[in-house]
Amino acid sequence: MRFLGYFRSSSAYRCRIAFNLKGLEYDFESVHLKHGQQKAAAYAAVNPQQLVPALITDDGDELAQSLAIIEWLDETYPQPALLPQDAVLRAKVRAFAQVIACEIHPLQNLRVLQYLRNELSLDEDAVNAWLARWLGDGLQACEDILVKQGGNTAFCFGDQPSLADICLVPQIFSAQRFNVDIAGMRRINEVYEHCQSISAFSDAHPKNQPDFEV
Amino acid sequence: MRFLGYFRSSSAYRCRIAFNLKGLEYDFESVHLKHGQQKAAAYAAVNPQQLVPALITDDGDELAQSLAIIEWLDETYPQPALLPQDAVLRAKVRAFAQVIACEIHPLQNLRVLQYLRNELSLDEDAVNAWLARWLGDGLQACEDILVKQGGNTAFCFGDQPSLADICLVPQIFSAQRFNVDIAGMRRINEVYEHCQSISAFSDAHPKNQPDFEV
Repeated sequence: MRFLGYFRSSSAYRCRIAFNLKGLEYDFESVHLKHGQQKAAAYAAVNPQQLVPALITDDGDELAQSLAIIEWLDETYPQPALLPQDAVLRAKVRAFAQVIACEIHPLQNLRVLQYLRNELSLDEDAVNAWLARWLGDGLQACEDILVKQGGNTAFCFGDQPSLADICLVPQIFSAQRFNVDIAGMRRINEVYEHCQSISAFSDAHPKNQPDFEV
Repeated sequence: MRFLGYFRSSSAYRCRIAFNLKGLEYDFESVHLKHGQQKAAAYAAVNPQQLVPALITDDGDELAQSLAIIEWLDETYPQPALLPQDAVLRAKVRAFAQVIACEIHPLQNLRVLQYLRNELSLDEDAVNAWLARWLGDGLQACEDILVKQGGNTAFCFGDQPSLADICLVPQIFSAQRFNVDIAGMRRINEVYEHCQSISAFSDAHPKNQPDFEV
């Protein structure tokens, strides 16, 4: 498999955790977002949306969108499972992942922040207020969902890592990077800390990637 | 089943199409977004994220996030299938749905538009430029993905409606509502027109809902 990503991309980070949890090897190719490599013809031919990540399977199929890639990995390499067997719990894990992937991350990704700074001429205080609002509200929703779910499990939904944890950890990394205050969100911080103690998660951290830059 | 939604919500619209394609009955409860009913304690107890839609199953389980709800419906009521059997094609359908749900819709939903108008004091021209950018770019990506996929099939991915069409149709409705010019995007317009000829899609249109308001 060839995996096309970028060290700082939350979506690529999610996929790296999934690869690691399943013990899958892949060839990594860096797509430098700040240099605009995602807009180059070679990458756009693989992923017309011109966003990372993309996965090229051993059969040459070109897949995009991190959650779709991870579900494909989970179907193709079923052990260990990243989604629960129970249909209702599976829906809850997917919904939690989508709170992050559909409601938080899209409002903080590079192209949107560039639009705020360049097209809307927002200053850094206004950009930080935007980030604090959407990451703050979104991660509070994550916290509230886990509290409603109940249980003091090691991971978001039980004692095994799932797609929910795979999405939560990169989103908390982003909150830290953008200095969003989430100190009062006990459950998600506990899960985050526990995940950091597991090499599948810590090895996937942006600072441990070959294309890392300060 | 109890379905909590709002006529104009794209996410609720997706679920309505899925219910109709599967011929499923449900009790509908309107959550009036413009009146802020999604923030009322009764609704927040069901969905801590305070966004529509939510589904309460016959067993009393409370589910959120439209894509997770639709996957649960598809697993629980398998016929007709809303995802292809083939794993790669299934990943492509999910990815297409996520282009819309994770990259387009979050940038145009009510709370973000309210933030642009109220917190950032953008005038209508600037709001329209924002919408044109993200809906335009996003739907162009959808068009490019279908062209790359090839085939002149009736639906996005083949001759049966799937989760891809379920997401595309409400997103095109939004583009029309916001006067975003997508006339040059031949494939997605053809699919949209074809879907409109099918009652499962047309019955789900916002104007045909009991809580519709001009």
